[in-house]
Amino acid sequence: MSSEISYQPIGYIQTPFMTISDMPIQPSGANCAEGIIELNPDLVPGLLDLEGFSHLILIYHFHLIKEHKLSVIPFMDDQPHGIFATRAPSRPNAIGISIVELRKIENNFIHISGVDMVNGTPLLDIKPFFTKYDNRTDAKAGWLEEKSHINIAKIKSDNRFE
Amino acid sequence: MSSEISYQPIGYIQTPFMTISDMPIQPSGANCAEGIIELNPDLVPGLLDLEGFSHLILIYHFHLIKEHKLSVIPFMDDQPHGIFATRAPSRPNAIGISIVELRKIENNFIHISGVDMVNGTPLLDIKPFFTKYDNRTDAKAGWLEEKSHINIAKIKSDNRFE
Repeated sequence: MSSEISYQPIGYIQTPFMTISDMPIQPSGANCAEGIIELNPDLVPGLLDLEGFSHLILIYHFHLIKEHKLSVIPFMDDQPHGIFATRAPSRPNAIGISIVELRKIENNFIHISGVDMVNGTPLLDIKPFFTKYDNRTDAKAGWLEEKSHINIAKIKSDNRFE
Repeated sequence: MSSEISYQPIGYIQTPFMTISDMPIQPSGANCAEGIIELNPDLVPGLLDLEGFSHLILIYHFHLIKEHKLSVIPFMDDQPHGIFATRAPSRPNAIGISIVELRKIENNFIHISGVDMVNGTPLLDIKPFFTKYDNRTDAKAGWLEEKSHINIAKIKSDNRFE
């Protein structure tokens, strides 16, 4: 019995970033870069009441990643870490998440800001961000904690994961 | 050209919840229910340095969901909402996310608490929670905002999504 799990994109994300290199490395490094989700028009009824939310959690596929690595040197450090202790895209399942701001919805076009993914990224899911479920202000962040002083708005990605 | 995206589970999540009914509806409703991720042993090198993080973002497949709906009445309300404005499992792509607390790691067994998924759930990805990327304390939450007074620790799931 295969344990394979298959999904269809619910849409695609248009962003200003045409290649993996020179992208922001997180939405908080994205300086409010704007993007548009083009949702499969059949799914528009699923957007009812989404407009009341200020932030969305996007789950998407890193479609340009060709192979996975178990150890990576992430953008925020010069030391290797296990892939699951990083947000690097070259994961066993190349799934990304980003929290973005919702600007407006026009039919099947969802205008967002704070995008940090490459143009044409296949979108798997949209979830509403809810402070009560999704914030953990007391979380400790291991090796990343020491890097908290880094201004990630000044770091851009490069071709290490291509 | 098929746009299908396929993943293999990186492991399975053991939890105290044997059926969809009577589960907590979010980790914050889980009263610290404990669980164990049994990771594919080949992937253990990917866990290096994960233990420094207090919280993990788990991305998993709602494997018991048979069909999707675009409009649902979620556990927190008695009115229908678009599926993308809810966290209900009967989504076009049946992907769930939960933030859990990391207790300890023993080889390929990751002990966690705050689980809210059914026993045997296929796990797709583990990401470290990082306050700087993942908190949005100013987020507005549409219809859910009005339900903020509800104590979700007292709400259990039922069979509506089976």
